[in-house]
Amino acid sequence: MSIITIERKVLEKNDEVARANRELFLNHGVFAINIVSSPGSGKTSILERTLTHLKKKIKVAVIEGDVQTDFDAQRIAALGVQAIQIVTKGGCHLEAPLVKEALASVDLANVQLLIIENVGNLVCPANYDLGEAMKVVVASTTEGDDKPLKYPGMFRNASVLIINKVDLLPYINCRIDVLKKNALSINPSLHVFETSCTTNAGIGEWCDWLEKNILKTR
Amino acid sequence: MSIITIERKVLEKNDEVARANRELFLNHGVFAINIVSSPGSGKTSILERTLTHLKKKIKVAVIEGDVQTDFDAQRIAALGVQAIQIVTKGGCHLEAPLVKEALASVDLANVQLLIIENVGNLVCPANYDLGEAMKVVVASTTEGDDKPLKYPGMFRNASVLIINKVDLLPYINCRIDVLKKNALSINPSLHVFETSCTTNAGIGEWCDWLEKNILKTR
Repeated sequence: MSIITIERKVLEKNDEVARANRELFLNHGVFAINIVSSPGSGKTSILERTLTHLKKKIKVAVIEGDVQTDFDAQRIAALGVQAIQIVTKGGCHLEAPLVKEALASVDLANVQLLIIENVGNLVCPANYDLGEAMKVVVASTTEGDDKPLKYPGMFRNASVLIINKVDLLPYINCRIDVLKKNALSINPSLHVFETSCTTNAGIGEWCDWLEKNILKTR
Repeated sequence: MSIITIERKVLEKNDEVARANRELFLNHGVFAINIVSSPGSGKTSILERTLTHLKKKIKVAVIEGDVQTDFDAQRIAALGVQAIQIVTKGGCHLEAPLVKEALASVDLANVQLLIIENVGNLVCPANYDLGEAMKVVVASTTEGDDKPLKYPGMFRNASVLIINKVDLLPYINCRIDVLKKNALSINPSLHVFETSCTTNAGIGEWCDWLEKNILKTR
């Protein structure tokens, strides 16, 4: 039995559970997004700004994936939003069965938007469907403008690209136009937003777009 | 056959080849380091500064690991240093057999320092020994001060921590003392350097320390 065969089996099993998760979301009118990025690109900060912006209008729940610690779930819970922490204990990505398990603690009938924050990893989470409506990839300006070309899988499988930390552009060597061009060369249908969690730039545009998409599916 | 059994087998096979690589390095008096980090933390920039600092004194070769593209090998070759590019085509980390294969193109008798730059990933490369004398983990200040606690495996298995992009500290919300404390709580024997590839701060200290360690092993 080759490694490739086993990986395919792992993915097949994952995709089977992901399909069941997706059906569950559809049946409950839940719009689910899977946020992916490198460690430290600002996923949790964007999540905090997004929740602050939307939580009065939209019923939200959050699933947090981390290799270790429940720091992120604590940050979300501090905003008064339900947050379930999955600790992978070394695992480099979330898989659909872990999400299914976490969903047992969520009252889906009372949720319009489910945000799943994946483990910080720009490679492995690209291949694992969790049942989400879309993947949102966050790329920080500080990571440089070449990342879409060097890690194409994630940008290919995402529907949205959030370019975060635009407030740092004056101090770093990142050409945002090149970053966007590189991302669109990998995936021309990406919706691109430019944000800063320090100045709040772009958070409104992103939240308005997200809100429209949530309401569209109901 | 369970997944865990298979992963153990993959690791066992890897470690066997890693042992052979290590023996090869010892026989040729080659000091090998494995540089690991998140995408965009500045591994290649640190490598460029290190080579500029050391290449007149020390004979160096570089193996570059990337998911896609040979951009990094091009950057190194531009400095007149031999660079072998491994493209993993989606693979999330380097493994010892890939390094062994790349070594076929390196004249080890003419190398004192071999730098292996791993795929940008703060999770998976932690578990794969390539035969190196030490892992060097790079953490960018822009990733935040909580990363050692959230991704402990990499910090536990490294001998050196380079905190990069210290020039950005005035503009971001990262407490460098907390970052260091968190890293040392995971691994008290880490040697810590603070660098900036923009101002060159700390590059000299890191290169002096590295040079001493290279000479010690010969």
